[in-house]
This record gives sequence, structure tokens and C-alpha cells, in this order.
Amino acid sequence: MNQRDTLKVNNEGILEIGGIPADVLVKDYGTPLYVIDQTHVENMCKTFVDALNNNQINGMICYASKAFCNKYIYEVINKYNLGADVVSIGELYTALKANFPANKLIFHGNNKLEEEINFALDNKIKYFVIDSYYELELLDKLCQEKEYVQDVLIRVNPGVEAHTHHYIQTAKTDSKFGFSLDNGDCDLFIKRVKDCKNVNLVGLHCHIGSQIFESKSFEIAVDKMTDYYKKCNDEFNVKFSVLDVGGGFGIYYSHPDPKMTYNDYTNYVDVICNTLKRKVQQLNIQMPYLILEPGRSIIGEAGITLYKVGSVKSIKDVKNYIAIDGGMFDNPRFALYQAKYSVVAATKMNDVCTTKYSIAGKCCESGDLIAENVELPNMQSGDLVAVLSTGAYNYSMASNYNRNLIPAVVSVKNGVSRIVVKKQTLEDLIKNDV
Amino acid sequence: MNQRDTLKVNNEGILEIGGIPADVLVKDYGTPLYVIDQTHVENMCKTFVDALNNNQINGMICYASKAFCNKYIYEVINKYNLGADVVSIGELYTALKANFPANKLIFHGNNKLEEEINFALDNKIKYFVIDSYYELELLDKLCQEKEYVQDVLIRVNPGVEAHTHHYIQTAKTDSKFGFSLDNGDCDLFIKRVKDCKNVNLVGLHCHIGSQIFESKSFEIAVDKMTDYYKKCNDEFNVKFSVLDVGGGFGIYYSHPDPKMTYNDYTNYVDVICNTLKRKVQQLNIQMPYLILEPGRSIIGEAGITLYKVGSVKSIKDVKNYIAIDGGMFDNPRFALYQAKYSVVAATKMNDVCTTKYSIAGKCCESGDLIAENVELPNMQSGDLVAVLSTGAYNYSMASNYNRNLIPAVVSVKNGVSRIVVKKQTLEDLIKNDV
Repeated sequence: MNQRDTLKVNNEGILEIGGIPADVLVKDYGTPLYVIDQTHVENMCKTFVDALNNNQINGMICYASKAFCNKYIYEVINKYNLGADVVSIGELYTALKANFPANKLIFHGNNKLEEEINFALDNKIKYFVIDSYYELELLDKLCQEKEYVQDVLIRVNPGVEAHTHHYIQTAKTDSKFGFSLDNGDCDLFIKRVKDCKNVNLVGLHCHIGSQIFESKSFEIAVDKMTDYYKKCNDEFNVKFSVLDVGGGFGIYYSHPDPKMTYNDYTNYVDVICNTLKRKVQQLNIQMPYLILEPGRSIIGEAGITLYKVGSVKSIKDVKNYIAIDGGMFDNPRFALYQAKYSVVAATKMNDVCTTKYSIAGKCCESGDLIAENVELPNMQSGDLVAVLSTGAYNYSMASNYNRNLIPAVVSVKNGVSRIVVKKQTLEDLIKNDV
Repeated sequence: MNQRDTLKVNNEGILEIGGIPADVLVKDYGTPLYVIDQTHVENMCKTFVDALNNNQINGMICYASKAFCNKYIYEVINKYNLGADVVSIGELYTALKANFPANKLIFHGNNKLEEEINFALDNKIKYFVIDSYYELELLDKLCQEKEYVQDVLIRVNPGVEAHTHHYIQTAKTDSKFGFSLDNGDCDLFIKRVKDCKNVNLVGLHCHIGSQIFESKSFEIAVDKMTDYYKKCNDEFNVKFSVLDVGGGFGIYYSHPDPKMTYNDYTNYVDVICNTLKRKVQQLNIQMPYLILEPGRSIIGEAGITLYKVGSVKSIKDVKNYIAIDGGMFDNPRFALYQAKYSVVAATKMNDVCTTKYSIAGKCCESGDLIAENVELPNMQSGDLVAVLSTGAYNYSMASNYNRNLIPAVVSVKNGVSRIVVKKQTLEDLIKNDV
């Protein structure tokens, strides 16, 4: 467990989140329950914003909405002056319904639909990140109809792919996103964008990967992107002013991930900013407006899912299972990516771990597991289990598989809890049935 | 494509489902769109029911709701006198709201919750399939409180695991479900069940796998299960009358799956019934009430998802992508299991396939693909794509990932279409936000 002031074990050996013991949260709200440690979210927002400010670079920290999207999170990040990137009309709609300022929204995605583009244009968002010729032509046409000029960035594949502890540099980027910088695709596209009268190209965007711990990969990406930024201004007669280098900053899920601190995230920003400053000086260009897009790192470790143990099953010489009242419907990441999580016995935190368990979900599918070979104390029906670092891509990927209900989201801060997303009801399941 | 009268190519080279061309469905309902060929569902229901009847064995075909669950499907299967198995309060609630008879419902699952058990008891469903000591004790307690005796089956692991074209026999079953027949766990559990006054043990259940094409595996399972059924009646002084051998009958997704016909499913039932008849004679026992649980085979091939192509992208020497307006939010099975689907150009069915495409979803995630290396004609933005055999575990596993909306479900029969599940709205997304 990556302990912090707002995630620790209290004197009774109970997991405490934001000053509230897990068993109290469960008594008040039931299980399964998504818990968000709001203080940690706020600290992460401040960490990124301060780091950018301290580097005296003009820019914006844009929260990547897809990690965890609902009205609540937009209210929190707005208080800390973050922008946000959205990837669908649904995320955009949610942001606007939370009174998030449209001029701090960036629209990503490899296949934006006409309806989505129109909605974004009508609401006057800040930037589109254009991903294809199809989108460019559609956007230009729709802008013409509205007699409007839209600022856009281009999604670039810089040939740097970063994954956790390693990165590769490749000229043959295989991605459904964007345009390769190395094979000339991006050059051609930029020339085409310049022909579009209602699309104003202001800069470049890249996203090099997810769950990255190797800051060197950001250094390489910023280096290449800045070179290309300069090349565009020189050779293609554009006037770039924006550089968006995406997100992908890693979080602690479980051993052997590094136990990330606020300083580690400051360091990512410093590496990016220092590289950019060096390049700006070297290339003798104006400092671009810098955009960073942390998502998982802002919300991931702030989220903890609480479950109650039901069935406990030992198969002799094979395995011990504990079955929880959630599963792949509230957290599909083990089934999808074999993602490793830290699982703890929330009310037996100081007990000696004696047994290896597989944590089974309640879906009627053998593959519905949350974790395997987790060392825990002797577990009994009724015990609470906490799965840590579930803030990102759990609620946002939740489904009604097996017609299970999506759990409530509760926010905790300074010992006070409140529901921010209500649990689904049975009526919700059949709401759209004719 | 596994063609049939209700899934074919018309004279204009357009995919026709239930007598309606795909482009007409898209014009009427938009994309993405889940289409259900109701005639095929009905034919599958009849095939299974008739096969059981023709074998003159008393029993029930129970539709496995988890494959595709909404009020519509319960109305269809009820007309054909199927029962259904449910795995959650949500499925049970949906069935009851569709006026499905509770006394034809069986409740499965490895971790039924107290709330779920109470709801099922209050509605007087037919059988619980008990999966653990925890559940047994909870059920017995809740039945006592209600002064009610519940008929139950036990989930047994017969040590037969079947997968598509092969099966293994193992005494060391690793499963979160049920009790091993080979290691003595099931014997011990049955003795315990007999102590429970409010739980009436009437038989056995097993489920040996999914997407099975090898009927020999059912023969082996029925053989072992019947031997054990007899042993229980002899040694444990129980009066079993029910044998439920589950489902798992394979469907055609894509080459090299066999192109299944109605006769192939009749054959599965015949193999099971013939094995059972032989064993009943050999062991000199009364013929059990036989339950079969087809899910995927009833609804899988009846489902077709229609998408519109947006971005078309060729990365030189790497890959061609077409991006559709759906993705892992409406069909997560490629991301989850690398499941292979047949993908066709719904309005260019007679065109020569010239190009290999990867079919990318619109979610902001590199892994959001529906299929790779699909041979299609030259595809352009605006073309329609049909993904076949999406009836099972697509709608039921759909999510709002990236805040995309879950598509509508449209049923077609004899040239008439109707919406059976409405498309989600943007308002639905924030309905539970506080």
C-alpha cells in the first residue's frame, strides 16, 4: 500500500480513507463502493499546476476525463484551474452540465462523429486535436456552415512508445491515432490543413503511452516534438504556438511499481519543462503554450473500492478463493489487461497475512477475477476487502454485465463523506426497454 | 458468413437481415445498431425444445440470460416455453418485469447476495443452484425466517473441461464455481446440505465450458454426472430427480469455426439424451428431469451490429485502419478475449475484397479494436460495416466507457423492424450524478 495522510491504517487496524474508517463507509453506503479520497485528488491537481507555474511556463494542465468522468470530478478540477480533455459528446456534455468552462476543453479521439463535432463547435471549446483527413474535412465543412474558425492541434506520432519501465523509438508507428512524424505522413497532412479556411492550426499534440515511470521517454518525446514544431514553423509557414505532450504518468498499483510521491510528479513536469526550455533556447524559438494531460495520475490512487466477502472456498491442493460482491462489472481491468492491484483486508490491516487467495468476482464467468495470489489474513464471509488505486478506468469502464448494478461513488474529505454518484437502481436497468 | 434465409445478401449486394436491407435499418435507426434477427432466435428456441421433446425426455430448456438480457428476450423465449437461468437480482428483476413465470427460473452464481436470495425467495423461483457453504447457510437461514422450503441443485465440477475443439478430464478442477466431484468435496457438501431443514436438494448441475463444438465432451460429462447422481441416491439417501448439464454449445463467429446448422444443435441434444438414456438403463434408475442451458447458441448468431465507417487511415508499410462509430463500449470481446468476428461491408457484399483492414473502435485507447486483418473491398468514410454473431455478450457487456452511449437494439422479423431497447441518451449518463 502506498500510504499517505489520507490513506492509512488507524489504531484499530482498520483502513482509513480521508479520515473515515472503511467499515464506517460501508455501514453508511453499503458495498461495493467506489471511494474517492478528494484531498488526494486536490493535492494531485495542485502538484501538477504548481509544477508548471514554478517552471514559469505558460500553459494548462488538462485532466484526461476518460479516466473518471462525472459532474463531480469536473467540479473538483475546475476549483484548481485545470482544463480537461474529452473524447466524446458524452464527456463533453458531462463537463458542460458541471458548468466546466468550454474554453478549457480539448477534444481528442480517432473518430469524432459529426454530431460530436457539431456539439463541440456549438459550445465553443478551445481545441480540437485532429486525427485524420476525414475529420479535418468534416470539421472544415461544419465550420464553414457555421461561419466559424476553429483552432486545432494535430495528433502526431513522434515514434516514441513508452511503457512503464521502458521505451522504444520507432519510425514505423502502428497506431489508430494520428500521423507519423518519421514517415512524412504528418508533413503531408499539415500541408493539407493549411488549405482549410475554417480550421486554424495552432500546434501539435502527442501521447506516448500509459503508466510510464521512465521520465527519459518524455525527454525524448519533447525533444523530437520541439524539433518538429520548429520545422513546421520554418518550412510549412504555419504559426504554431501550442505544444501538447499528453499524459501517461504512472501510478502505484502494486509491487514492483514505484511508490509514487507528489515530488515524483513534480519531477515529471520538471523534466518536460527543462527539456522544452533547453530546446527553445537551442532552436531560438518562442516558448510554446504547454499542455499536459494527466488523467490516471490525478484520480487513480485517490480511488479505493470496498467490497464485502461472501463465499470463501478452498480447493485442496489447488487454490483458495474469496468471492466479493463486485467483480468485472465494476473493475474489468484484470479481465482486460491482467492488471495487478493491491488488495487488503480493510478491517484486519494489522493481522498477519497467512494465506494466498484469488479474489473472485460475482459474475457468472470463470475469468471474473480481480486479483490472484493475494497474501491476506485468514478471511471469512462478511470481512471487508479494499482494492486500491481503482480511481481510474474502473467507474469509467463499469458495465451492467450480468445485470449487476454500478456501485455508488462516495467522496471523502477531512472526515466527511458524501455521495457524488448514486448507485444504479433496478429500474435503471430496464429504463430503455420498450 | 453463416448465411440463412434471414441473413443473406440481396440482389443489390446489400446485407439483408430478417428481410430488411442493412442500409434501410441504418436509415431508420442510425448507427451503431444492435440488430436481432428474431426469426433465428425463435428457430433456435424451437430447435432445442423440439429436440428435447423428440427424445421423449421430460425436462426444460433454460435460456442463459447472461448472454443477452432485457424484457424483449424474455418475451420471445416465453412464447416458446423455455425456462431461463438468471445470475443476479438484475436479471431476475428484468425477467419478472417481462412477466416471465418465476417457476421457470433457476438462480445461478458463485456469490449470491442476501438481497438477491431474498428477492428470489419472495418471488418463488424454481431452483437455486447452490455454489458454496456460505450460500447454503445463508439460504437455509433466510428460508427459515420465511418458513419456506426451497428446492436446490448443487453446482458440481465433474472434472470435464471443454473448450471449442478439445476437452480435458481433470481431477484437480480450479474453478471459483461449485464442488469437485473427484476430490470428495461434493460428497462432503451433500452431507451438509441434508442437515439443512429448509433446503431441499433435488439434483445436480454442471457447466463444462463455452463455445464447445466437440459433442463427445457432453457425453463424458453426462456419463460422469449420471454415475454420481446414482451414487448420491444410493449412498447419501437423497432423492434426486433433476439433472442440469448446463450449456456451452458453440456458434459460428468466423473461420475456422464450423458453420452451425439447426441440425447441429439437435445433434448436441440427441447426444446428451442418448447418453442419459443409456446410463439410466445401465444404472437402473428413474429418468431424471433434464435441464439444458443454451444462451450464446440461442441469441449469438441472431445478433448483427451495424456501424458506419468514419476515418480511413493507411500507414504505409504498416497497416490500414477503418474507424467505426462503435468499439469496445458496445463489444468488448476483442479487447477481453481477442475474440474473432466476421466483419463484412454491409452495402458492398458482392464487391471483391482487395484490402486488409484493422477495424478500430472510437474509444481513446489503442487496444480498442473489433477485428484485425479483415479482408474487405476498398472502404470509404460513410460505408456500412456489419459485425456478425454479436447477439451474445455484446449488449450484455456494453459499458459507457469514454461516456459513449449504449446503442439501440432493434428486432427484425418478416420485413418488419421495431426498437426493443432504446438508445441511451446523454441525460442517462448523468442521471445518477449528484
